[in-house]
Amino acid sequence: MNHQLIRRILLRVIEVECLFMVFPAFTALLYREFYEMSVYLGIGGAVYLICHVVSKFIKVADPKIFYAKEGFVTVAFSWILLGAVGALPFFVTREIPNYIDALFETVSGFTTTGSTILLDVEAMSHASLLWRSFTHWVGGMGVLVFILAIQPLSGNYDMHIMRAESPGYSAQKLSPRMRDSASALYLIYLIMTFLLIIFLCLEGMPVFDSVCHAFGTAGTGGFGVKGDSIESYSMICKITITVFMLLFGVNFNFYYLMVTGKIKDAFKIEEVRWYLIIYLAATAFVTIDIIKNGIYTNAGKAILDSSFQTASIMTTTGFSTADFCLWPGFSQAILVVLMFIGACTGSTGGGIKVSRILAGFKLIRNETELSLHPQRIKPLYLEGRKLNERTTNTLKVYMTAFIFIFTLSVLIVSMDDFDLVTSFTAVAATINNIGPGLSLVGPTGNFSGFSYLSKLVLIFDMLAGRLEIFPMLVIFTRKVWRRGA
Amino acid sequence: MNHQLIRRILLRVIEVECLFMVFPAFTALLYREFYEMSVYLGIGGAVYLICHVVSKFIKVADPKIFYAKEGFVTVAFSWILLGAVGALPFFVTREIPNYIDALFETVSGFTTTGSTILLDVEAMSHASLLWRSFTHWVGGMGVLVFILAIQPLSGNYDMHIMRAESPGYSAQKLSPRMRDSASALYLIYLIMTFLLIIFLCLEGMPVFDSVCHAFGTAGTGGFGVKGDSIESYSMICKITITVFMLLFGVNFNFYYLMVTGKIKDAFKIEEVRWYLIIYLAATAFVTIDIIKNGIYTNAGKAILDSSFQTASIMTTTGFSTADFCLWPGFSQAILVVLMFIGACTGSTGGGIKVSRILAGFKLIRNETELSLHPQRIKPLYLEGRKLNERTTNTLKVYMTAFIFIFTLSVLIVSMDDFDLVTSFTAVAATINNIGPGLSLVGPTGNFSGFSYLSKLVLIFDMLAGRLEIFPMLVIFTRKVWRRGA
Repeated sequence: MNHQLIRRILLRVIEVECLFMVFPAFTALLYREFYEMSVYLGIGGAVYLICHVVSKFIKVADPKIFYAKEGFVTVAFSWILLGAVGALPFFVTREIPNYIDALFETVSGFTTTGSTILLDVEAMSHASLLWRSFTHWVGGMGVLVFILAIQPLSGNYDMHIMRAESPGYSAQKLSPRMRDSASALYLIYLIMTFLLIIFLCLEGMPVFDSVCHAFGTAGTGGFGVKGDSIESYSMICKITITVFMLLFGVNFNFYYLMVTGKIKDAFKIEEVRWYLIIYLAATAFVTIDIIKNGIYTNAGKAILDSSFQTASIMTTTGFSTADFCLWPGFSQAILVVLMFIGACTGSTGGGIKVSRILAGFKLIRNETELSLHPQRIKPLYLEGRKLNERTTNTLKVYMTAFIFIFTLSVLIVSMDDFDLVTSFTAVAATINNIGPGLSLVGPTGNFSGFSYLSKLVLIFDMLAGRLEIFPMLVIFTRKVWRRGA
Repeated sequence: MNHQLIRRILLRVIEVECLFMVFPAFTALLYREFYEMSVYLGIGGAVYLICHVVSKFIKVADPKIFYAKEGFVTVAFSWILLGAVGALPFFVTREIPNYIDALFETVSGFTTTGSTILLDVEAMSHASLLWRSFTHWVGGMGVLVFILAIQPLSGNYDMHIMRAESPGYSAQKLSPRMRDSASALYLIYLIMTFLLIIFLCLEGMPVFDSVCHAFGTAGTGGFGVKGDSIESYSMICKITITVFMLLFGVNFNFYYLMVTGKIKDAFKIEEVRWYLIIYLAATAFVTIDIIKNGIYTNAGKAILDSSFQTASIMTTTGFSTADFCLWPGFSQAILVVLMFIGACTGSTGGGIKVSRILAGFKLIRNETELSLHPQRIKPLYLEGRKLNERTTNTLKVYMTAFIFIFTLSVLIVSMDDFDLVTSFTAVAATINNIGPGLSLVGPTGNFSGFSYLSKLVLIFDMLAGRLEIFPMLVIFTRKVWRRGA
């Protein structure tokens, strides 16, 4: 294990995070929040200096040694450190007086979960609200690739970091040169976010709110600036956000192919097709269910709220325009299932991902036929390409690991003796990076009532969900902690 | 597909089921229930005759053609037909006036689930109570192997039927001659059931109740004869049933090895060790939780009830001595997790099975190390034997298929718009063959309130759970329904 290089990268990541604190500091200046400004500048500056000095003392013997294991370890620890340092301003300004709570909020931000422990979000300073939403935007596309694209170090670690940070089947499909394709994706991301800000401003949303909500939408995070999330904004704003949530949940390869003129290939992506089919079906069923049960008498409002809410849950954003805890059982069951399905791979959304669900279906069909004809072996195709043994194997182990972590988390969280729906959906909402769950953690509730142990478990779940589990498991292997390994 | 032979076996299965109806008829005679007696004898006799005559007309061209696919199809349809015919007496006596309800109750019996739609179990005739419990006993060890061990047909289908009916890793481990080892297992099963009846009678339980409860315990089914299940019996009866539930949840290879003198090998079975560890840990946590939360003030009673209830849920029996819906959230979460873990493979219990959970843990550990060193391939060991690719693959697909069926079922059942805990645990209790769930389907509730669609889905789930999913999936493939395939 190349410990020196890993440490060097970790310090670099923190340095860049500190530079990002200029944005909330600038916001504080605009709103004349001078105390908050000094906190963000102070913490950013101090931590930057420390990292900068320390990194001078780290001698990297061989910057070429950087393999899969180094990638996993770097990614896992980077995200933990990002949370730990990013939480400092909340803690120091006493806006979140408890450090574990501040850590929960920050990790929830970077992992684009959007679960909050805040009882009154409107009491926060503008600087901290912006920082909270900004973490979504940075976390959405993958922090490390972003940071290293800006400030490259020497070495060939890009690929292993990108693989560890954004797995799925698609990373290798783009341009052969990693950094180029990463830059292309970031450009698309930036332009789409910018468009959303413009649209929201034109539709009458205040500029500050537009920026924060655009960050939350782009990263499929879900932190807002109001206690009732998006409910109090105009209908046209809700529709705009619905559309953009769906757009950010699409596999970014789609846009990449569109931009590079391969429009036919873009529309051939199976995952995107199924993503839309599932979304439309879910919206239709929820709409019928909430009208049938008399929750809504106005069909237009029912369609508006159900299309917003299913988009918000499926893309794992987590904004809300209605308290879906009051919706009937069938609608709630659909939302819970959407929580697990999630968005597309290669998008900013979380969850298990549509392509995995798709591959799972194909696997079952294949295995059923296999049990009829044990001697025949049929290859599995996804997106027109054959899935090799290694990929399907990892997929199946991913599912198994997901269930184990999920179950263990529910058990620990339920030690707080809340009702089962609360414990279950709290874990579901964090491990799938959604935000709100049901019952006590529903859209009108929050995560402040859990014990510190539960909060730490949920923090772990948010990271495991965002990094697709394996990097977070790797840090529990003995090898990582052994010297000279 | 050898359709003729499959039909021949199916008819044979129904014939034997009709012969079994002598037992409830005899019980009816003892209790002077002459109407019920005539119904059981009439249905049994008539259906037997029809099957017997029809089977004379089926010419089996080649009795040697019987492979895995024939095994799956035979097993799936046998279990469906067993339920369909076994439900007739309930329906004809009007004790269960609706046929779908009667089917639900019978499939719940044969699959050893123990979920009931009866509002008042004590209003049933003795004949029907015995028939209900008897289906548990027959279903516990696998109906087909049992029937074909009694009345063999010519051909080499034993192995494929046994594989399809009781999968897991252990079937091939016993004596090389299938029928011999099956007979040995049935003998052990019979003796243990007989011992339990004797014990319960000696402890003061009425003979009829003892027989029914012994059937329910041996098959890990859970149908009782009283509205409050086991709650009103003496403490010593509860302890006896606790011990025997645990014994019937043990991998039967354990007893086989014990009987054949390989005591050292018996205690080496990893699965049995973990089964006990999980059981003891769960009981300890539940006991502490229910005392801590003031549900019980008497520690002895708390230990008694928690050890009974965790054993009942983990072995998927489903008897109850307390309404665990009133227990705190942590205890409920533990019970829900135990529902999914289930008992050992090669036992009469259901659920995912301890050995699968064990293999899952090892898979995750292996894959985590693999992601560190992609080039190294490490074999997986379970019970000291290497798991081959085929087995681990089937295991992983099983998990995936389990989740898909589970999710789809919850979605359909939730269309009845009950609360999420009811929908979720109703499916969990049926697919894992347990019996009671939580909330409306808890120990004091029942399954009568669901729509017919939901009941049909739950019937499918009970069968899918008992037959470990693949036989029930196979009947949905086109190949099975195509002539000459």
